[in-house]
Amino acid sequence: MTQKPVVVVGGGNGARAFAGHLSLKGVPVRLLSSFPEELKAIKQQGAITVSGTVEGQGKVQVCGDDFAAISDATLILVVVPAFAHASIARSLAPYLRNGQIIILNPGRTGGALEFSQVLKDEKCPAKVCVAEAQTLLYACRSEGSTGVRINGIKKEVAVAAFPAVETQTVLNELTKYFPQFKPVPSVLHTDLMNIGAVFHPTTVLLNAGRIEGGEKFEFYRDGMTPAVTAALEQVDKERCAIAKTLDIPILSALEWLESVYGVQAASLREGLINNPAYQGIAAPTTLNVRYLFEDIPTGLIPFISLGKLAGVPTPTCQAVVELACAALSHNFWEKGRTVEKLGLTNMTKKELHDYLLHGEK
Amino acid sequence: MTQKPVVVVGGGNGARAFAGHLSLKGVPVRLLSSFPEELKAIKQQGAITVSGTVEGQGKVQVCGDDFAAISDATLILVVVPAFAHASIARSLAPYLRNGQIIILNPGRTGGALEFSQVLKDEKCPAKVCVAEAQTLLYACRSEGSTGVRINGIKKEVAVAAFPAVETQTVLNELTKYFPQFKPVPSVLHTDLMNIGAVFHPTTVLLNAGRIEGGEKFEFYRDGMTPAVTAALEQVDKERCAIAKTLDIPILSALEWLESVYGVQAASLREGLINNPAYQGIAAPTTLNVRYLFEDIPTGLIPFISLGKLAGVPTPTCQAVVELACAALSHNFWEKGRTVEKLGLTNMTKKELHDYLLHGEK
Repeated sequence: MTQKPVVVVGGGNGARAFAGHLSLKGVPVRLLSSFPEELKAIKQQGAITVSGTVEGQGKVQVCGDDFAAISDATLILVVVPAFAHASIARSLAPYLRNGQIIILNPGRTGGALEFSQVLKDEKCPAKVCVAEAQTLLYACRSEGSTGVRINGIKKEVAVAAFPAVETQTVLNELTKYFPQFKPVPSVLHTDLMNIGAVFHPTTVLLNAGRIEGGEKFEFYRDGMTPAVTAALEQVDKERCAIAKTLDIPILSALEWLESVYGVQAASLREGLINNPAYQGIAAPTTLNVRYLFEDIPTGLIPFISLGKLAGVPTPTCQAVVELACAALSHNFWEKGRTVEKLGLTNMTKKELHDYLLHGEK
Repeated sequence: MTQKPVVVVGGGNGARAFAGHLSLKGVPVRLLSSFPEELKAIKQQGAITVSGTVEGQGKVQVCGDDFAAISDATLILVVVPAFAHASIARSLAPYLRNGQIIILNPGRTGGALEFSQVLKDEKCPAKVCVAEAQTLLYACRSEGSTGVRINGIKKEVAVAAFPAVETQTVLNELTKYFPQFKPVPSVLHTDLMNIGAVFHPTTVLLNAGRIEGGEKFEFYRDGMTPAVTAALEQVDKERCAIAKTLDIPILSALEWLESVYGVQAASLREGLINNPAYQGIAAPTTLNVRYLFEDIPTGLIPFISLGKLAGVPTPTCQAVVELACAALSHNFWEKGRTVEKLGLTNMTKKELHDYLLHGEK
């Protein structure tokens, strides 16, 4: 048990789970958010009420929006929607110190690269290490204004640092608290394993009438009709083709279902419908959801942009984004992560791999 | 009353209505189809049973698949799905004679141009006139194997010939039978007024999960949710922008609803939902429908191709087509009407207008 504080940035499901869990492990925890009102009740109570797999009152040492509180921590866990990563990077930049480690939980596609690029743009002088997890460690849901229910803790979560030469340093620190994190060769491995970007936006869009019509249905069991899963397969093929061209070995969505959930299925549709872990998951009841507003700008759009860099066509991903723009009357392209925003403009494959490894072009 | 036979090509709702109605007007009618089995029962009975607005037994003089029967007719009404126009052109080519008039009911986008181009490619020596109607004259449905119910006859249907200098000749012949047809300046006017291409494919796609899920709902009242109609508005904007750039004055979808149905509405959504004529129209129960398989290749794809010719971006139309390809596992592009298939490759606006008027580049 270390007495050094760990900072958790965020206030939602995942942030509460990390903060509460760490505190129950005896770690001094500081919980910070750009939206202090979301932490108000936790601040008053001085603790997070954790239930489920882990139970207890997880005390919080510092709670608020003063990012100066990060200064004496080594580990900073950022647990916010991916579209907020850039803004958090700008908020943290003035307070960062050499040697600090920032982990995005999860990074979605391009989290660590974008975060690093914003720190550069902000001329942050500190030499920090930015890493990203491939998925959230917890299956959890906020309860009331101060609680979180942890339904499960994943056995393994892939993590990569940017630059990748720092991944071992990150692991050394991170595994003091969480043995579940396992290294992958570079952030492009976590970036291209953004399975939510495959499953969510296309399914929401092809079920848009049903969602807005107020029908209650299960996202996976009912929403995954033959046409929907045929479209998902195309999105997934485009993702896998990009990875292959960039020499990043990844799993197809079907392989991923087997690897994570042990689902054995002849087709993606069968796998999604029959996955016991997906039973009972309700479809969204509005189109104003992270399945679109997070997974498009920090999933499909960086897929498309990486596709252009790799010379791999992504017509289906593009169609989903463009039709979402029309249907939601929202320009998703504007805030989408592109290779320019990730600092990868015009790189050759060799330059890209060198950059991912060493952080220099 | 003329004793010259009129040929109707087709065997479905519209073809039965035209053939039956003409016959009841005392016109000798020949009904031809590439699929003679669809005419078998009518051939046996020797007549079409017409009910509704018009009633009676409409005798059919000739019924079958021998296209030689067109030779002594002046007027040939082609009443088949638009994706079959090219194939009908190839079937008719060997039998056509100078001065014959072929009317596509309706042409959708590019019908007359494609038909003419196929006749050229087939080296058809006859000088014929090809025209297209903007919509089907009748609101009708087949009944049983020999019947058709005519629920309504439109008061006005726009028609244009290719080349446009022949439109008056077409009108002179056509109005002997049907006073409802009114001339418009060129086939691009009928082509760009393909409202089905605006309303149908996008709505089917954004309701795909619901349709495949087996939900019964009304296409217009229930299917036109805010996101769906927002997307329709973008498709319609793209169509109107092409028309504007090509100097073709057309109505927006909302203006069209007012002009045809007298619907006064503040938004396209309100107009669609409140149009009394659209009440009770059931959504399709499968994705294997003409709303996709006709309206994409002979509607959205020629919009996109004309957009390229005009330098007008059509991102939403393209997204709908591309996502339909993925969802239906079908390459809609392959059989789609492009400016190349319409004989308009690389034309400037002036060349295009000259060609539409005179049929020569």
